[in-house]
Amino acid sequence: MRLTTFSDYALRVLMYAAAAGERLVTVEETAKTYGISRAHLMKVVNVLTRAGYIKGVRGRSGGFTLAKAPEAINLGEVVRATESDFGLVECFAPGSRCIITNCCRLPQVLNEALNAFIGTLDRYSLADLLLSRHDFTPPRRPITQVRGPHLSPKRPRARTSPSERGRRASNEKARQSS
Amino acid sequence: MRLTTFSDYALRVLMYAAAAGERLVTVEETAKTYGISRAHLMKVVNVLTRAGYIKGVRGRSGGFTLAKAPEAINLGEVVRATESDFGLVECFAPGSRCIITNCCRLPQVLNEALNAFIGTLDRYSLADLLLSRHDFTPPRRPITQVRGPHLSPKRPRARTSPSERGRRASNEKARQSS
Repeated sequence: MRLTTFSDYALRVLMYAAAAGERLVTVEETAKTYGISRAHLMKVVNVLTRAGYIKGVRGRSGGFTLAKAPEAINLGEVVRATESDFGLVECFAPGSRCIITNCCRLPQVLNEALNAFIGTLDRYSLADLLLSRHDFTPPRRPITQVRGPHLSPKRPRARTSPSERGRRASNEKARQSS
Repeated sequence: MRLTTFSDYALRVLMYAAAAGERLVTVEETAKTYGISRAHLMKVVNVLTRAGYIKGVRGRSGGFTLAKAPEAINLGEVVRATESDFGLVECFAPGSRCIITNCCRLPQVLNEALNAFIGTLDRYSLADLLLSRHDFTPPRRPITQVRGPHLSPKRPRARTSPSERGRRASNEKARQSS
């Protein structure tokens, strides 16, 4: 399960513009800062502009800046605007050939999970991600940290029977007294 | 945002085996029923076998069946086992070149969203998806239904000022009385 690179870059563009404050930034500069493709970033900036998150200023010293306060840029809304689709499974797009499409209950579960995902993003705005300009200088040490995915293990249900609990408790006692 | 075809097929294999009950089903038969690649499905069945969800019986009349009761096959655990990664953004994998990897706050938000997604699946088991054998007969009408994504729109925060509310109310009154 991944987000598209498009969404990843869109969020980075917004974070960079937010850190720049009122200063106009360029696609060139943003691409160079992150070390990513200028052509790809241009498309991202176009979509963010059309969606009303950033605004451009033409001319020699032109560039773009946030079109709204960071507090007004909701992360759930940004991802809804930048993801090409949320096609978790085949029947989430027209033309499904899966024989059980009409009666399957999996889509309900997946729609619920998807809404839990996007609902979490809905609780955050760009203001929650604000960095300073200094954070965009190259780190002194190589980047070795992996920031995710930090998936919590499934919590096992309490399936143990009373007799099982009794046995475990006496084992525990025996261990402590030894 | 998508799940891999691998996870999609894995869930379908489990649903098909669950509907078959104690009858052994084959990769051949499952592939034919869903109209999907036998070779791809073979890999899926291998992974599901190794993960202890299905068990195979060798021989001429061999095949596979569920290795546990449907209630004991948790959907969150299945997807954890079948997704190749949950690499939502670049820094969720080793080798990130993103300049803000070390200080960025987006990973925390995305990890939270991811756990909300998988945590929803954790609340369901294969038993919640049980179909009958008859559900696997070709539908009489072509499949036109799209089963998702049904993303709820973001609920707007109450941002309207008292004066704005007053203006809206009087507009509404005017509309009703006209």
